[in-house]
Amino acid sequence: MALSKGKTNCITDVGGVKVGHVTLYEKLDEESTICTGVTAILPHGDDLFNTKTRAASAVINGYAKTAGLVQMNELGLIESPIMLTNTFSVGAVWQGTLQYMLNGNREIGDSTNSINIVVGECNDSYLNSIRNQIVSPEHAIQAIESASSNPTEEGAVGAGKGMVCYGYKGGVGTASRVVTTPNDKYTVGCLVISNFGKREEALFADWEKKKLDAPDGSIMMIIATDAPLYDRQLKRLAKRCAAGLGRTGSNIDNGSGDIAIAFSTANTYDHNTGTAVESLSYIRDDHHVMNQLFQAVVEITEEAIINSLKKAETTEGRKGRVVEKAPL
Amino acid sequence: MALSKGKTNCITDVGGVKVGHVTLYEKLDEESTICTGVTAILPHGDDLFNTKTRAASAVINGYAKTAGLVQMNELGLIESPIMLTNTFSVGAVWQGTLQYMLNGNREIGDSTNSINIVVGECNDSYLNSIRNQIVSPEHAIQAIESASSNPTEEGAVGAGKGMVCYGYKGGVGTASRVVTTPNDKYTVGCLVISNFGKREEALFADWEKKKLDAPDGSIMMIIATDAPLYDRQLKRLAKRCAAGLGRTGSNIDNGSGDIAIAFSTANTYDHNTGTAVESLSYIRDDHHVMNQLFQAVVEITEEAIINSLKKAETTEGRKGRVVEKAPL
Amino acid sequence: MALSKGKTNCITDVGGVKVGHVTLYEKLDEESTICTGVTAILPHGDDLFNTKTRAASAVINGYAKTAGLVQMNELGLIESPIMLTNTFSVGAVWQGTLQYMLNGNREIGDSTNSINIVVGECNDSYLNSIRNQIVSPEHAIQAIESASSNPTEEGAVGAGKGMVCYGYKGGVGTASRVVTTPNDKYTVGCLVISNFGKREEALFADWEKKKLDAPDGSIMMIIATDAPLYDRQLKRLAKRCAAGLGRTGSNIDNGSGDIAIAFSTANTYDHNTGTAVESLSYIRDDHHVMNQLFQAVVEITEEAIINSLKKAETTEGRKGRVVEKAPL
Amino acid sequence: MALSKGKTNCITDVGGVKVGHVTLYEKLDEESTICTGVTAILPHGDDLFNTKTRAASAVINGYAKTAGLVQMNELGLIESPIMLTNTFSVGAVWQGTLQYMLNGNREIGDSTNSINIVVGECNDSYLNSIRNQIVSPEHAIQAIESASSNPTEEGAVGAGKGMVCYGYKGGVGTASRVVTTPNDKYTVGCLVISNFGKREEALFADWEKKKLDAPDGSIMMIIATDAPLYDRQLKRLAKRCAAGLGRTGSNIDNGSGDIAIAFSTANTYDHNTGTAVESLSYIRDDHHVMNQLFQAVVEITEEAIINSLKKAETTEGRKGRVVEKAPL
Repeated sequence: MALSKGKTNCITDVGGVKVGHVTLYEKLDEESTICTGVTAILPHGDDLFNTKTRAASAVINGYAKTAGLVQMNELGLIESPIMLTNTFSVGAVWQGTLQYMLNGNREIGDSTNSINIVVGECNDSYLNSIRNQIVSPEHAIQAIESASSNPTEEGAVGAGKGMVCYGYKGGVGTASRVVTTPNDKYTVGCLVISNFGKREEALFADWEKKKLDAPDGSIMMIIATDAPLYDRQLKRLAKRCAAGLGRTGSNIDNGSGDIAIAFSTANTYDHNTGTAVESLSYIRDDHHVMNQLFQAVVEITEEAIINSLKKAETTEGRKGRVVEKAPL
Repeated sequence: MALSKGKTNCITDVGGVKVGHVTLYEKLDEESTICTGVTAILPHGDDLFNTKTRAASAVINGYAKTAGLVQMNELGLIESPIMLTNTFSVGAVWQGTLQYMLNGNREIGDSTNSINIVVGECNDSYLNSIRNQIVSPEHAIQAIESASSNPTEEGAVGAGKGMVCYGYKGGVGTASRVVTTPNDKYTVGCLVISNFGKREEALFADWEKKKLDAPDGSIMMIIATDAPLYDRQLKRLAKRCAAGLGRTGSNIDNGSGDIAIAFSTANTYDHNTGTAVESLSYIRDDHHVMNQLFQAVVEITEEAIINSLKKAETTEGRKGRVVEKAPL
Repeated sequence: MALSKGKTNCITDVGGVKVGHVTLYEKLDEESTICTGVTAILPHGDDLFNTKTRAASAVINGYAKTAGLVQMNELGLIESPIMLTNTFSVGAVWQGTLQYMLNGNREIGDSTNSINIVVGECNDSYLNSIRNQIVSPEHAIQAIESASSNPTEEGAVGAGKGMVCYGYKGGVGTASRVVTTPNDKYTVGCLVISNFGKREEALFADWEKKKLDAPDGSIMMIIATDAPLYDRQLKRLAKRCAAGLGRTGSNIDNGSGDIAIAFSTANTYDHNTGTAVESLSYIRDDHHVMNQLFQAVVEITEEAIINSLKKAETTEGRKGRVVEKAPL
Repeated sequence: MALSKGKTNCITDVGGVKVGHVTLYEKLDEESTICTGVTAILPHGDDLFNTKTRAASAVINGYAKTAGLVQMNELGLIESPIMLTNTFSVGAVWQGTLQYMLNGNREIGDSTNSINIVVGECNDSYLNSIRNQIVSPEHAIQAIESASSNPTEEGAVGAGKGMVCYGYKGGVGTASRVVTTPNDKYTVGCLVISNFGKREEALFADWEKKKLDAPDGSIMMIIATDAPLYDRQLKRLAKRCAAGLGRTGSNIDNGSGDIAIAFSTANTYDHNTGTAVESLSYIRDDHHVMNQLFQAVVEITEEAIINSLKKAETTEGRKGRVVEKAPL
C-alpha cells in the first residue's frame, strides 16, 4: 500500500530540517563555464555541535569522495550540516563549514574537542569547469546561512546546478512520506543530488536510445526522519536507498559514487553534559512501523530522483554543451 | 541495452557450475507436513577444497543465519559447495557437507588445515513443519551428489520446496546473461531461493490486494560468472543484487534475510602449492565490461525471482495451508 | 591505573552470566584420541529467546567458521547461548543448541519467527581426532544445562580440552575487572578459548625457542558486561580485544580465526511485545567510564589468555602427541 | 624470531617511497602559538594518478576525519599522495593536494574522471592554536614537492610538530623490517603520527604517574611495502596495526582516531589503458611469508611509535604549555 506524501513532499516536512543552496553560474569563455553550487542540509536549526543528531551511512558504491563518514559510523552522530557540492570542492566546502561551526562556538578546538564535518559530492564536470574550483569556503557558509524550513527548490539549483541524470538535466530532487500509527505519525524525507545513469537505462520513461556522452556520475541520497531511531537502524534505512535507486533503472555503475546518509531528529545528543548514563527511545526493528519506514525510504528515493528530473531546466555548460530538460 | 540471455537462461550456463536438489515432501498428519529440501551449487565439478574459487558476499539485510561468510570475506575464497536449505537445517546441512568434503579428502583436519562450509537458508515455516528438523546430513550429501550441469529445475524444488514469494508459491529461480566483448564472452548466472514479499508489493504484476498471512521471508541470491574477477570485485557484483531485488518490489523488510554470494570460476586457487607468489587476472573496474557485468547481475536477479514464481506449482503444506501458483 | 579485579576474576562475575562445559576425552587407539568438548556461555539464566541480549562482534581475523554473526550484526542482539567447540562440530552444536531452544519455546518456527544460533570454534586437530566428529547435538544441550554462575573451570576443559596456545597447553581462560564510578559499579568479564601462537612469540614469558609443529590456531574471545551499552558500543568493546591479544605476543597469523563477541546484560529486549517504541539506557561514548571499559577489555583479554595457559594441564592427544603445561 | 630492520629503519626503505614535511612554528602572542605542519607520503615518484597504487585501510577507532577512505576501499587503489596534518586543516590540505595533482595532469576533471585525495589527521590543539587554521593549500603542495627518498626526519616535524603521545612530545616516527625468502626480499615500512595515550598507560617505560591534561588524541599509521599484495591483503596488514598499537599500552580510547592505511608499491595500476583484462601478482595468504609480513607490521607499528617519542624534542605551544621530550 502506497504511503501518503508529506505536506509539501519535501525533506523539510521533517520538522526542523532546513535546506539552503548557493548556485553559481557564469559563462567565462568559449571553453569554460561555471555551473555548480553548494547545498546544505541542517538536521535542525539549533547549534548542531552542541545538539548532535543520530546518523549513519551506507556506501552503495564507493566511487566517492564523501568526507566525514568514518566518525559518523564510529559514533552514530553528526554534528555539522550535511554539505553537498561538486567533486573538486570538497576541501573548500569542508573548510567553510568548519569555519561556520567555529564561528558559532568558541570552545571547539580550544577547551573542548574537535568537530567532524560531513561533505558529499557528485562530479558535474560535463557542464561545469570543475578544474576552476570556483567554490570557496564562503559559499559553504552562505549555503548554510540561507537554509530554510520552506520547501526547497529542486532541479538545477545549489549542488545540483551542473548535474546530469539519465542523460537529461538532473540535480536536486526531494520527496517525503508519512507513516501513521495509532499513536504516532512519523515523516521521512529524502533529498538527492542526481548525477548518474544513461538514457537507455531509465525504467520510468520510454526514452530514445540516443546516447549522451557524459561521464559516469553519482548520487547523494540524504534521508531525514523524525522517527526515533538510532545509528544501527538508520544504517538500515540508508541501505534501502539501493532499492529505490535500482527501481529507477540504475545498475550502479562503476564510476557512480552512490552514498546514502540517514539521520533522525529524535533523540538528539547533548555535547555538554557530565552524565555517564543517558537513554534513547527507538522503534523496535520487528514492529511493522519499521517496515513502513523502509518502504518510505524506497519510495522517496525513487521519487526524489524523478522529481529532480522533472524540475531541472535545460542548462548550457562548458564547451557549449547543452543538457536538456527531461521529457517528463 | 538489454543483454542477451545465456543458452538455457540458467546459472549452469556458466561453464562447470552444477546444481543439485533434494526435495522432501510428506503429509504427516492434520497439523504437520514436511515440505522442504536442500539445494547444492557447485562452482565446478572437481575437488572444491583443493581447487578453491574466488568469492565474496553482500549482506543486503542480515536477518539471516548464513554460515561461512566470515572466512569467505577474509580470504576471498570458497572451498565447499554453496548449500541452501531451510532455517532450522543449517546445522545438519553444514555437518553433511563437511562429511562429504572429508570423505573426498583424507588430509583435511589431519595433515592440512580445516575447511569452511557455506550454508544459506530461508524460513519455510509457513508450509513446512520446520520444527521437525527433517533434513539430515545425508540429504546434504545427496544434493551434492545429484548435482548436474544440466539446466536446473525451478520452482517448488530442493530448498525452494516450501518457500513463499510475494504471497504466491516461490522457490528456486534462475536466469543468465552473456556479456560480449571483441575478444571475450562472459556468462553471468543467478540462482535464487525466493521467500519474501507481500502481494501488494509486487511491481511486475497487478495482483489483488488480498493479504496472505505469511511471515517475513528471505532471499538467497547466488551469482556465478566465468569472468575473471577477484573478491573485492565479486563483492561489487553481489551488492548489485539489491537493485534487482528492489526492482521486483521488495522494500527489504526487517525479517527478510537478503544475502548475496558471488563467485568466479576463473582464477581458481590451488590448495596444494609451496609457491609464495602467484598471479590472477581480472577485469579492470573502469572498463565498460564491468558495467555490463553489473547490469547482468541486476537483470538476472530480477528475472530469477520472477522465474521462481512462474515455475512454482500450487503447494499444500502444514495445517492445510495452500499457497497458490502465481498468476504469471 | 590498573583496574581492580572482579570478585572471582571470572566472566561469571557479571551478574547472571553462566558458563557450562562438556569435556570429551578418550584414547581410541594408537592413532586416534578424542580430546575436545563444548563450552556454553549464557548471558542470563532466563529464556534467552524471549529476553534477548544486546550484542556485537568484531572479526579481528576471519579465518573462522563462527555461525550467527550476520544476524547479530544486523539486529544488535543475541537470542541463544554463545556456544564454543571444535571447528568440525559447528553443525552439531548449532543443531543441538537449536533443539534446546525449541524445547523451551513452542512458538519458535511455528507461531513466531525463527531463531539465530551463535557458535564459535577453534581447531583442536593437533590433539583431537577432529575428523571423527564426536561432538553430538546432545553434548551441546548438556553444556547448556550444566551452565552455572559459579566461577568456571579453566584450562583443558570444555571447548578448551584440545587447544594449544603459544606451543603449550591452552584452553579456557577467564578474567574480570570492575569499573567504579561515583554512582555505579560495572563489571566486565572475558572468557577465551586460546589456541594460537608459537612459543617464540610469547611476550609474557621467556620461553625456549623450540618450535612445536602445531597448525595455526585461533582464539574466541567473549566479553560480558553489566554496563548499559548498545550494539555499536559493544562492537567498540569487541574491537579492543585486538589490543589485548597483541599484548600477549600474537601477530594475528593468517590461519588464526580471531573473533570477539561482546554482550551487555543490561537493556534486555523482550521478544513478546506489541510496543512500537521502547527505550534503552547507555553510557555516553565520551564519558571517561567508556575508556575504563575499553581498558578493562584490553586487560582481561590479555589476562584470560595467560590464565588459560596457567590452568591447562599437560595433555596427551592423538598420535601420541603430548602438549605440556606452560611453565608459568 | 625478530625480523631484521631495513637499511635505515625508515618507511623510505621501501623502494620509491618518498616523504616530505612542512613544519609551521610561530609564537603569535601570550595565548596563541602556531605549532603544526603537513607530512606527505608518496607511494612512488611518478605521476600518482596515472600510475595508481594498491591500497586499503583499517579503521581501528573511527574518531577521525580521514578523507578518501570510501573510494580507496571500493577500488583498492590510491591515486594521490597520502597527506597528514592537523584536524582542522583537512580541507586546506585536501584542496592543495588536488591542486598539485591537477597541475600535473591536464585531463583530470576535463577529459578523464575525477581524483580521490587521501588526508589523515590528528588533533594538535593542546600545543597548536588549531582554530587559526594556519595551514594553507600551498603548504600541502610544498610538503609534496619537498618529498624525498632519504630517511625522513622524525619527532616534532611536519604533521607531528604539535602532537603529544603518552604525555610526552610525540610526532613523526618510522621503522622498517625486511622479510627474506629463498627467492625474494620484501621490505615493510611504517610511518606514524603519534598523538595519543596517557603517561600511566605506556608499557615500554616506567613513567611517573603524573597526569598531563591533554585531550584524547589519535594516531595515523601508514604501512608501505614492496611485497606484491592486493587490496584485501593490504587490509589484513592494516588491521595488524592494532596489535602493535596495543603493545605500546594504548587501550584505544574513545577520542583517539586510530586509522591505518597500507599500500603496496608492486602491481601498480595504469590509469590509461583500454585493456579489459589485466593481471596482478600476490603472495598467497597461506604462505609463511604472509605471517612474516604481519609480524613486520606489528613490530614496526610499535617501534615507530616509540621512535616518534625518542626523536621529538621538548616543545612549547599555545598558552605557554610545554610538552617535554620523553625520557627514553
